[in-house]
Amino acid sequence: MAGNSVGERFRITTFGESHGGGVGVVIDGCPAGHPFPNDRIATQLGRRRPGQSRLSSQRKEPDRFELLSGVDPSSGKTLGTPITMVVRNVDARSEHYDDIATTYRPSHADYTYDARFGIRAVAGGGRASARETIGRVAAGALAEDLLAATHGIEIVAWVSDIADISSAAPDLQQICRSEVDRHVLRCPDLQAAEAMEKRVLDARSDGDSVGGVIRCVARGVPAGWGEPVFSKLSAEFAAALMSIPAAKGFEIGDGFAATKKMGSEHNDEFYMQGDRVRTRTNHSGGIQGGISNGEIIRLALAFKPVATIFKHQQSVTQEGRDVRFSPRKGRHDPCVVARAVPIVESMVALVLCDHMLRRAGIRFEEL
Amino acid sequence: MAGNSVGERFRITTFGESHGGGVGVVIDGCPAGHPFPNDRIATQLGRRRPGQSRLSSQRKEPDRFELLSGVDPSSGKTLGTPITMVVRNVDARSEHYDDIATTYRPSHADYTYDARFGIRAVAGGGRASARETIGRVAAGALAEDLLAATHGIEIVAWVSDIADISSAAPDLQQICRSEVDRHVLRCPDLQAAEAMEKRVLDARSDGDSVGGVIRCVARGVPAGWGEPVFSKLSAEFAAALMSIPAAKGFEIGDGFAATKKMGSEHNDEFYMQGDRVRTRTNHSGGIQGGISNGEIIRLALAFKPVATIFKHQQSVTQEGRDVRFSPRKGRHDPCVVARAVPIVESMVALVLCDHMLRRAGIRFEEL
Amino acid sequence: MAGNSVGERFRITTFGESHGGGVGVVIDGCPAGHPFPNDRIATQLGRRRPGQSRLSSQRKEPDRFELLSGVDPSSGKTLGTPITMVVRNVDARSEHYDDIATTYRPSHADYTYDARFGIRAVAGGGRASARETIGRVAAGALAEDLLAATHGIEIVAWVSDIADISSAAPDLQQICRSEVDRHVLRCPDLQAAEAMEKRVLDARSDGDSVGGVIRCVARGVPAGWGEPVFSKLSAEFAAALMSIPAAKGFEIGDGFAATKKMGSEHNDEFYMQGDRVRTRTNHSGGIQGGISNGEIIRLALAFKPVATIFKHQQSVTQEGRDVRFSPRKGRHDPCVVARAVPIVESMVALVLCDHMLRRAGIRFEEL
Amino acid sequence: MAGNSVGERFRITTFGESHGGGVGVVIDGCPAGHPFPNDRIATQLGRRRPGQSRLSSQRKEPDRFELLSGVDPSSGKTLGTPITMVVRNVDARSEHYDDIATTYRPSHADYTYDARFGIRAVAGGGRASARETIGRVAAGALAEDLLAATHGIEIVAWVSDIADISSAAPDLQQICRSEVDRHVLRCPDLQAAEAMEKRVLDARSDGDSVGGVIRCVARGVPAGWGEPVFSKLSAEFAAALMSIPAAKGFEIGDGFAATKKMGSEHNDEFYMQGDRVRTRTNHSGGIQGGISNGEIIRLALAFKPVATIFKHQQSVTQEGRDVRFSPRKGRHDPCVVARAVPIVESMVALVLCDHMLRRAGIRFEEL
Repeated sequence: MAGNSVGERFRITTFGESHGGGVGVVIDGCPAGHPFPNDRIATQLGRRRPGQSRLSSQRKEPDRFELLSGVDPSSGKTLGTPITMVVRNVDARSEHYDDIATTYRPSHADYTYDARFGIRAVAGGGRASARETIGRVAAGALAEDLLAATHGIEIVAWVSDIADISSAAPDLQQICRSEVDRHVLRCPDLQAAEAMEKRVLDARSDGDSVGGVIRCVARGVPAGWGEPVFSKLSAEFAAALMSIPAAKGFEIGDGFAATKKMGSEHNDEFYMQGDRVRTRTNHSGGIQGGISNGEIIRLALAFKPVATIFKHQQSVTQEGRDVRFSPRKGRHDPCVVARAVPIVESMVALVLCDHMLRRAGIRFEEL
Repeated sequence: MAGNSVGERFRITTFGESHGGGVGVVIDGCPAGHPFPNDRIATQLGRRRPGQSRLSSQRKEPDRFELLSGVDPSSGKTLGTPITMVVRNVDARSEHYDDIATTYRPSHADYTYDARFGIRAVAGGGRASARETIGRVAAGALAEDLLAATHGIEIVAWVSDIADISSAAPDLQQICRSEVDRHVLRCPDLQAAEAMEKRVLDARSDGDSVGGVIRCVARGVPAGWGEPVFSKLSAEFAAALMSIPAAKGFEIGDGFAATKKMGSEHNDEFYMQGDRVRTRTNHSGGIQGGISNGEIIRLALAFKPVATIFKHQQSVTQEGRDVRFSPRKGRHDPCVVARAVPIVESMVALVLCDHMLRRAGIRFEEL
Repeated sequence: MAGNSVGERFRITTFGESHGGGVGVVIDGCPAGHPFPNDRIATQLGRRRPGQSRLSSQRKEPDRFELLSGVDPSSGKTLGTPITMVVRNVDARSEHYDDIATTYRPSHADYTYDARFGIRAVAGGGRASARETIGRVAAGALAEDLLAATHGIEIVAWVSDIADISSAAPDLQQICRSEVDRHVLRCPDLQAAEAMEKRVLDARSDGDSVGGVIRCVARGVPAGWGEPVFSKLSAEFAAALMSIPAAKGFEIGDGFAATKKMGSEHNDEFYMQGDRVRTRTNHSGGIQGGISNGEIIRLALAFKPVATIFKHQQSVTQEGRDVRFSPRKGRHDPCVVARAVPIVESMVALVLCDHMLRRAGIRFEEL
Repeated sequence: MAGNSVGERFRITTFGESHGGGVGVVIDGCPAGHPFPNDRIATQLGRRRPGQSRLSSQRKEPDRFELLSGVDPSSGKTLGTPITMVVRNVDARSEHYDDIATTYRPSHADYTYDARFGIRAVAGGGRASARETIGRVAAGALAEDLLAATHGIEIVAWVSDIADISSAAPDLQQICRSEVDRHVLRCPDLQAAEAMEKRVLDARSDGDSVGGVIRCVARGVPAGWGEPVFSKLSAEFAAALMSIPAAKGFEIGDGFAATKKMGSEHNDEFYMQGDRVRTRTNHSGGIQGGISNGEIIRLALAFKPVATIFKHQQSVTQEGRDVRFSPRKGRHDPCVVARAVPIVESMVALVLCDHMLRRAGIRFEEL
């Protein structure tokens, strides 16, 4: 398989270039009989969409999805057949991209796509565009709806760091999307958010860009999800999140900070809370041996600063000539981290939904 | 698939519990006609083996592998058929594990395996034991041999941090395994290594444990390996490395440090070096848009401290009763990081070998 | 995976119900840089389309496909990214299907879909409709174009039997699509074709239906394609062809007739034709040990008579009541075999194209 | 994947050449907590074994399997981890194979393996040997044990035809293995079996070989198993059975005979039997639209005559020279059909067990 699908039982395939007919997703393996969550999908697509504020790219496409298959028109329920959603590309000003047709933009995927395929869709970055993530978010919203409806699972991501500005940690039991969305940068620590916003605007006026960190929790995941060995929940979260454009680092639980702790500090002691096995601390981040233990799953993802900047840089042409690259100003975010929040939530939801289904039937006594 | 396989074209399946007949691996998809690298496999298994020094567990099994299939006895070459290697379990003192039969060890996988399967192999951690990684290392050594023979690729990992002790970065162009192996802790900065050793011995005498960070480079990977979107090289490295027991964090290139940089600092400018497209810096860690760009690939992996400690801890029994858990002293490493070095190399090799084969045939002009 | 994808390296996923937004296909793994064969795809879709003659269903949709992704607009070449084609549903008269909303039609998939999913798309058979095969044919035409361009491979299928009328075997070296298409029933033996047509018209006027046999050859497949053991070419052809609606039997080479022969009659002796290893006979049908031997591949597929007939039949309702089922006359073919000819060709092309790519990189010396 | 694995959730990988360390299987995805059926596995391996009678090859290996992993030693129950079984090769007289080292045996896989891999295990046919099927039978016996324990499913295959001798159909509701095994040729029609035996002995004394047909039923499969579209039960049975060495044709239900029937003859009318939807006839063979309908599943598989014969044949050498091939007499069956009976049962069991698990979790209301 050529890398455009993810998931084993809840399997999605995204398609589409940033300029062309459209982008979309096919979901194979969605359980039958679930009310199709049009609103949740639209909401998450809206949160992902550029042009939401003065901080982001001005592309004005509404990102309305068209549902091509997989839902019963009379009942509005999923059929158990492939669900296809398409979002048309309507605001494609490809003349903006003339200057990158022959020059490789530093730290973009232009050169590597050429190295791999010998051809690439020049306009808008083609398949490497963030526009590809529309399909992930549409499918992820469906996945989280299934998780919510069956297990009351809640997935919430937020921006914890922008450049060198960190924020106070929220209450992991309480943090919710409306709290996250109070500030356009999706950092629930409003004081930090203000400082972050200033940093983003400074970067913008300087033609530069910044990165940041997104953290995410999944609450309500039962113990016993995840496959041991290669398909550990932690490994599959890592793959799913590291497949998001610009991702450079991943942590589960304490992450790199765990390496500084002694075993006696890091171990999560067990206790009984009624009938339920609980841990007093949660350094593990809800996963032990690759399998969920019923505690809050918590993750972090590092995003590099956006590669598109409006400064002179050295580069080379497709023909192998050194050139000075001076991009004309176009519509681009100096910081994509806030918009990546629903993408992170979506990838987490996709992994969990897949493992909810992979869990089915693994015990003889349940067959 | 139930999580015991990884790779698409160079696909391995590991099997075996820590106590029982043995552990091993089946490799499906190894190209035919390659001289089977007995010595390289034995060497890497030797580097992975416990009992190499006073710092590690005293299990004395030699980890000699038996080759069951896939190699032509007359020529010693691979047949293109499944290659099966088995390492017998010979030193299984299962009486050591009586105390964990009914009590869940904190931050081990005992509870989560029970939550998933309703049954578990008690002795030695069963499938969650580090012994499972024997199959990975055997297969990884074959993979790196293919990479070396076809492209001169070199993969070298080392310990950069133990607990709060960091080391000086080696020369990424030069660092080699013999240099890494000069110290038993596999940290090439010998001064730091001494401090690390002291820290490990302190932890040991205290019945405690420590974690650390392993860094790894892959040199010689051509531009154009890796699939865009979900099977990005970075995503598959993340999954492969995060599937190693005790892994809690992953970085490619600058990793989390990238989030603190401005785009103008982080971008890797291109230039021509003869016919070859190069980058002046390598913040990206050799991967852009999920595809290799021909520069050194560099990764980091965070290991939590070993969960097995010899201190009293609160826990619960399988029957749901709060207990005090006081493990009898057994053979266990207070620090597994050094032994994980060949495991990290193996997982990196497995991903690269898989993508070498996935690269074949993706251009029409090459068919 | 939930059964809507096929192929490993040239992987297609079809989607869509017979009534709803549309049907289509996503192709992941198409090599980059191949001129996209619009005309070949349109031609094969045209051959699959109902309403081509008085013998078939009167649905008038033109089955024009829309290309959503994966092709470079400027060069018209494939990008190596997912190719998505959609055909809209425009002639959906769902009122025709009221009578089947609650009654299970004998030998249709109504009952079994309900047994599986607990819900089904009633109108037009939903996903079990022959309309699903549009995606297969669109993708298959692309696959055969790749096979033709790279190896000169030709795939030709024809109708050999309708009901109890058999036809003379054509020259397997020469038979071509234009010869097949001379008669609307796609039987190149025109005398037999006339008799078949009469049989079909009789069935139609009687409200009944007939089945038949399609045979297919693939010429020009090199020796060495196909994986041993479970992914034998013969096994994958069998799966691909038996996945076509109404297929009930499959043969490779002599098929069931081989069981009547002695080994000395059935064995294909080798001889040298210049540098090339050839066989004097081809009882094996071009495949030995699951791998192509360079001779013509020949296959047969049995189609049951169409389940839709206009006669009274006993059946049951969704609620579990015995009823007499008397379908109102609608638009349906009494014989779908001729229309299945391009579907058979497409499935054969998809398997071969997948194995062409799976062949890449399996020898060490070719890496 | 290189073709040595089959199944999606109950996934087996076979390994091993006919001469070498051994042959075996790894099963990934077996539900946890099932009593491991040692006896059933031994029984089916015994039925597959050569040397059972004067009609078959004289290889004397007992085919005792060694269990390496996946079963809890204390309880004898499956752990949900990979189950590995190995059968050693102990009777390997490879000197018998000198004459085939350089000459391609007609209708064997010698030439095609060379064409694919450029290398092959000469002795005993290597991976193309029937010995590979040991792993299938071991895994299949486990699969059928799961099916029996959870749903009371019974799978019974028998020989219906040898060469041109057909037998009377048994009662599909009653036929059982003990009845099948009354005659060494595994044809329950004893009169036909006698005639078949004579035909086999004649072929043997003539240095020739014969083929035949195996039929198989699966009783007790509930309605609703099987995936629509590409993973139809019928398609997956076809692939599984056509992957057995020497298979040339496959039928489900009426198979090719269905093509001669009118729709009104072939359709299976529904009726209610208490709460259960039944069909009055079973031309469909228990599968409609690729999904089981609760009736008996019935299949047929055609086996060509064994390629190994002791007559002069024309052939070519590996170096491309025409030669006369006159094999020295070795130990080989003139008819393998009877021994293939447990292999057919095993492949049917593997497909069904996989689909039992794929069925789990596909309805929203069951999550």
